[in-house]
Amino acid sequence: MAVKQARKKNQPQQLPLPKGKLLAIGGKESKSEENRSQAQEDNRGFVSEQILKRFVDELQGKKPLVVIIPAASSLPEESAQDYLTVFKALGVKNIRVVDIRTREDAKNPENIELVDRAAGIMITGGDQLRLTSILGGSPFLERIKERYINEPVIVAGTSAGASAMSTSMIYAGETQGGMLKGQMSATAGLDLLKNVAIDTHFIQRGRIIRMAQAVAQNPGCIGIGLEEDTAVLLKEGKELEVVGSGLVTILDGMDISSTNIYEIEAGEPFTICDLKLHLLGNGKTYTIPSYNGGHH
Amino acid sequence: MAVKQARKKNQPQQLPLPKGKLLAIGGKESKSEENRSQAQEDNRGFVSEQILKRFVDELQGKKPLVVIIPAASSLPEESAQDYLTVFKALGVKNIRVVDIRTREDAKNPENIELVDRAAGIMITGGDQLRLTSILGGSPFLERIKERYINEPVIVAGTSAGASAMSTSMIYAGETQGGMLKGQMSATAGLDLLKNVAIDTHFIQRGRIIRMAQAVAQNPGCIGIGLEEDTAVLLKEGKELEVVGSGLVTILDGMDISSTNIYEIEAGEPFTICDLKLHLLGNGKTYTIPSYNGGHH
Repeated sequence: MAVKQARKKNQPQQLPLPKGKLLAIGGKESKSEENRSQAQEDNRGFVSEQILKRFVDELQGKKPLVVIIPAASSLPEESAQDYLTVFKALGVKNIRVVDIRTREDAKNPENIELVDRAAGIMITGGDQLRLTSILGGSPFLERIKERYINEPVIVAGTSAGASAMSTSMIYAGETQGGMLKGQMSATAGLDLLKNVAIDTHFIQRGRIIRMAQAVAQNPGCIGIGLEEDTAVLLKEGKELEVVGSGLVTILDGMDISSTNIYEIEAGEPFTICDLKLHLLGNGKTYTIPSYNGGHH
Repeated sequence: MAVKQARKKNQPQQLPLPKGKLLAIGGKESKSEENRSQAQEDNRGFVSEQILKRFVDELQGKKPLVVIIPAASSLPEESAQDYLTVFKALGVKNIRVVDIRTREDAKNPENIELVDRAAGIMITGGDQLRLTSILGGSPFLERIKERYINEPVIVAGTSAGASAMSTSMIYAGETQGGMLKGQMSATAGLDLLKNVAIDTHFIQRGRIIRMAQAVAQNPGCIGIGLEEDTAVLLKEGKELEVVGSGLVTILDGMDISSTNIYEIEAGEPFTICDLKLHLLGNGKTYTIPSYNGGHH
């Protein structure tokens, strides 16, 4: 018996594959046919409301409930209203807003009960640090994770709502694109998505250098850069499909041959050699390698 | 004898290694101790006038002549004046400005004679398309190339002056970072530097996506992205050293595993898989692979 137990311990730890789906959106996803920008007019890949339509298509069950969580925003009513409007327009009959502004709100059984009933959850944009500091470790977040692991719900987040899904969450680092050590700040995200650092508004705001810094700090995290109006739909926690009019940037640091990021002082420019880069358009797929799990 | 000749023809064509040096600068290189920006204050790698001091250090001979070529600028006097001031301050006694505004000026023997006498040549910023359309194929440019190949001169260019050194010269493509096919325009550069596409203001203006497009179009060209106040010093046409306070981005497309850039329509977002990316700080070195030459 003792031998058998020892063997069991030595087996690689297999996390259960989530039954739910994640939809991480790079911000500014199209919400109506009107007011197309020039950039959208130029883009032959642009489809109005493509990402939010996909969210609605993925809802399971009859009369599915969509729950909107505007907790990242300092103006939660406005933020929620935008999504109420577009989801109604897309035919969703059953929509509720969960107004969580404090850690107390994140323990409120009424709010948790809405998560229990939801077929789809939409976490809107704002400040990802507000999101993690209010929701991190809360019963409300735990219930979202339980349902995501065990049931065919879809959890979507845009901008801050997408960044917060990461393991390692980048929350600051605009200046000069983040090429100096320390010009990128990250903390633990909500960890819905394992082994990943998500960043949003990625091409529009030139964020690849700060992401390179995050990836070099821990190559076990794959960098996923989401452009505006561009999303990844994740199945089984690792099978990724691009949805939307822009590009998804994947930055893989597993083959980094050298870096000085751990040697230099804060404020010095860093060096990183042999990052792998993929740029993926609508419909393209990618499997997130489970480097931390040790089997890839 | 006939056999010997045939053998000679079958040998790989070896281009002579240039005896001169190139200094390609990403724009906005430091020109005085004063007026440091906040970004420069934050950057512990910042050294005032570092790049232009290096240019001066590399000048060979006694009382070396520095020739300033402000042909890329629509305000050539102002552009030249900045460099007159800084080179004087750095101790250069012998400086001349070559005012070339037309293709006729690029045939003028007086201008060509200045190139003959120069130990260092500085091509200032402006519009790279102006530079190639005025200098391309001219006796003036041919003389610069002859001297660069055969003599220990240094040829520097900043911003447009650096971009124009490329084989494939990117000259437009701001919108949305260039993620749509056709949102990046390139043409033949002055070809001082082989197998390379240079882009400048690289991190500041978020230009990696447009460079990925250029590299995917012809992976035989390595992409070199120069940040502001950051340069590469090239010896023997391929040995590169980073000089300056920012990062140099190298984008290598030789291992691209798939791309749809040749299949999709203009205006559609493209996909590129398995680009190789290096980010290099001051003092770091890199050898440009001679993929087109067939020996690497």
